[in-house]
Amino acid sequence: MESFFSFLEKRVDDCSSLLCVGLDPHISDLSEPTAAGALEFSLNLVKQTAPYAAAFKPNAAFFEQFGADGWTALKQVIEAIQEQSDRLGSMIPVILDAKRGDISSTAEAYAKAAFEALGAHCITLSPYLGKDSIDPFIGNSEKGVFLLCKTSNPGADDLQNLLVTNDQQPTTDSSVLGHSSSVITSPFSVPLYIHVARLAQTWNTKNNIGLVVGATQPEALARVRAAAPSLWFLSPGVGAQGGDLEVALKAGLRADGKGMLIPVSRGISRAARPALAAAEFRDEILNIQRSLI
Amino acid sequence: MESFFSFLEKRVDDCSSLLCVGLDPHISDLSEPTAAGALEFSLNLVKQTAPYAAAFKPNAAFFEQFGADGWTALKQVIEAIQEQSDRLGSMIPVILDAKRGDISSTAEAYAKAAFEALGAHCITLSPYLGKDSIDPFIGNSEKGVFLLCKTSNPGADDLQNLLVTNDQQPTTDSSVLGHSSSVITSPFSVPLYIHVARLAQTWNTKNNIGLVVGATQPEALARVRAAAPSLWFLSPGVGAQGGDLEVALKAGLRADGKGMLIPVSRGISRAARPALAAAEFRDEILNIQRSLI
Repeated sequence: MESFFSFLEKRVDDCSSLLCVGLDPHISDLSEPTAAGALEFSLNLVKQTAPYAAAFKPNAAFFEQFGADGWTALKQVIEAIQEQSDRLGSMIPVILDAKRGDISSTAEAYAKAAFEALGAHCITLSPYLGKDSIDPFIGNSEKGVFLLCKTSNPGADDLQNLLVTNDQQPTTDSSVLGHSSSVITSPFSVPLYIHVARLAQTWNTKNNIGLVVGATQPEALARVRAAAPSLWFLSPGVGAQGGDLEVALKAGLRADGKGMLIPVSRGISRAARPALAAAEFRDEILNIQRSLI
Repeated sequence: MESFFSFLEKRVDDCSSLLCVGLDPHISDLSEPTAAGALEFSLNLVKQTAPYAAAFKPNAAFFEQFGADGWTALKQVIEAIQEQSDRLGSMIPVILDAKRGDISSTAEAYAKAAFEALGAHCITLSPYLGKDSIDPFIGNSEKGVFLLCKTSNPGADDLQNLLVTNDQQPTTDSSVLGHSSSVITSPFSVPLYIHVARLAQTWNTKNNIGLVVGATQPEALARVRAAAPSLWFLSPGVGAQGGDLEVALKAGLRADGKGMLIPVSRGISRAARPALAAAEFRDEILNIQRSLI
């Protein structure tokens, strides 16, 4: 069965890249503070970096700030990525970074907005409302989601790092417990983000659920990897620092040397030559990846 | 200091109403499945129900499903609410039901999209990323947020109902503990949604943070009220059933007989006469409210 992550893995193989190019048209980076400026900024990045991009990640917020015109620009950017895919003969997945999260018919409408109106292949979601808020996005295996799991902002302490218990025994699936038993505080008490990772691993019956796990906390990254051995991670936070990148990849890559997308936005868009910066990120990740296998 | 909830309370007094009219243009309810159909549907509801509405709550998803045209329609709907406010001489707040949740400059862009590009006064947010994901929305006291706290969908069990602990002593603020001590499972263990309610109560220094708490689980509603004695709740789930409404209001109203907005969408939009349905909901809520004081 084809799935979002089978498409992504094909693209990863085609371009030997785990780099996800973030499209974040901050107003301060635009030639003019309008949707037209955001479009120009994004189209240039798409054109320059497509050969090195395992995926593109447009951030909805930076388009929505321009209202309806921003949505028109966002759709045009996704169409331009499709054109690059056609040109390269290799489909580059589009992950809409939108952090949605609602239930029933509202979630269905958000799925329709992302996958049909805009043409994205994947979307980031919040897990707070639980499984039925995810279902409308994953019914079609060819569309995917990344669930927020562990972020590295100060506010992560407010919810994600709390220790949680529930009345159920933790899973006895050896593929999960075998990896995670050493990091569980007690058999019934784990940080909320680990609980989310375990749920996502369980829910991933169609190979189209991944996790957002920050790259700047390698210990947390390793714990999530243990709790969700087969899932793809979207791991923001890596800048131009090679050391951090190596530590993050070591902590988060799967046994097969894949399983992590490294999103980079300003590290590429603000470079003198974005194409060169993307190529260098791609190569740097690839070198580390090969050294770890 | 003026604040979002001081504006809302003025409107509540002006129209003797706790009714929040939901604007959810489901495709099946439209004359045509387009943004123009969503606009027509919403403008009709706004015109018919404005005298009875303490607030309007357009649901972003049902506009976004029409892409850029949907955003144009959403902006026009919010402008039409402003016109009704001017006509009535009483500002009707607009709560954008968008369930956003991101950090730093992305959160700032979402706040700009909701409050500036669209002109909403308030937005619903997910709490999963913590305080710094809320800050960009609450810096201006005249703009407000409702944080997702406790929903009544099956998926609420996945995260919201988990028992959480942290290393900190629970607050000893008597205004909180005095109400909530009877419902704490142990001094250090409460359901996640109660933890969220306590955080929100603590964060609400500018009178512009409320909570989304489903109306269909009166016990949970009472627990959240105990944990957050002064906050406004947005409490969906009440249909045409007077019994449920009375139980919900009894569990959730503040000591001053306010503190709850009751959103109703299809119960009004699908009525033969939406104006009459809105008037009846307003009156029914008012009668129960008065009987409880």
